[in-house]
Amino acid sequence: MGFWKNLFSGSGSSSAPTLATAEVPVTQGVGRISKTPAPKLAQPQICFSQDREIDLYELERLCDAVGWSRRPLRKVRKAIKHSFLVISMWELQGDESRLIGFSRATSDHAFNATIWDVVVHPDFQGRGLGKALMKQIIKELRRADISNVTLFADPHVIDFYCELGFAPDPEGIKGMFWYPNSR
Amino acid sequence: MGFWKNLFSGSGSSSAPTLATAEVPVTQGVGRISKTPAPKLAQPQICFSQDREIDLYELERLCDAVGWSRRPLRKVRKAIKHSFLVISMWELQGDESRLIGFSRATSDHAFNATIWDVVVHPDFQGRGLGKALMKQIIKELRRADISNVTLFADPHVIDFYCELGFAPDPEGIKGMFWYPNSR
Repeated sequence: MGFWKNLFSGSGSSSAPTLATAEVPVTQGVGRISKTPAPKLAQPQICFSQDREIDLYELERLCDAVGWSRRPLRKVRKAIKHSFLVISMWELQGDESRLIGFSRATSDHAFNATIWDVVVHPDFQGRGLGKALMKQIIKELRRADISNVTLFADPHVIDFYCELGFAPDPEGIKGMFWYPNSR
Repeated sequence: MGFWKNLFSGSGSSSAPTLATAEVPVTQGVGRISKTPAPKLAQPQICFSQDREIDLYELERLCDAVGWSRRPLRKVRKAIKHSFLVISMWELQGDESRLIGFSRATSDHAFNATIWDVVVHPDFQGRGLGKALMKQIIKELRRADISNVTLFADPHVIDFYCELGFAPDPEGIKGMFWYPNSR
């Protein structure tokens, strides 16, 4: 099994990507047809992975970039280890790779999954990459026969998730959070 | 470590129970003081356990009693196995035990937990046992240093969870469910 899955080639397009199922080796580089060989290898690729080990400092930089509160790396490592699914998104250029997106899900491996920590680097937002990442995580959860895919959405991303097929409060079901010291 | 935790003794009280931290061995039976020894052993106890193996058919009978849709036992077993926390509630009388309540939580073991499948047998509802069960699951999640304790509540139990310290849609955060074929 290949390590990477190609999303689409080129980073300059503003159109929404469609997910490609082909896997491409990171070291080969797949570019558009060109008369000059050198740019072919330098063509950036956006890929995702379920398997690649995450450098926690790189993930922290990504989360810093979107303004999330810092969390102890020890706990982040534990949370990733005990997530059912972790999908990372990368920009690949030559031998270089840069973490540009991340998402994970907890699950009972049977009925329910809850998606947490969906993040795309600001430099890569507005290109449909968040949608591509979400579609991939939904696809993998459905492949695992998880029927109840859930998440908790901040107000400013509710429309984003609606477009992906998520419904808020279906049949009046409420997402609820427990607050310490409230009782 | 004892197998059971005593909630409170006697099953006839309608007042809300307070959680007892003492553990009692299931085979001894702890009753009220009585002049006749036999009823002491026969006094029913309500206890909970984190460790006891759940008979899936007994759990199915409990879920049937509250009208839940049946689920494949194979998947129920898998879901229990991969839950971070499973708490069951039992009526003990002499050597007999009866499953009367159940709840479980998925988690990343670090930040987030989501509580699923909270059920109390109708014969035992209205005595505060659901609250006792929920308080126990919250206590265990907090003990595990999980800061974000969440759930999805059906409309008719939202007030029940509010009384336990859960808030719906805090800061506008929406619980969302993905629907197949919607996109």
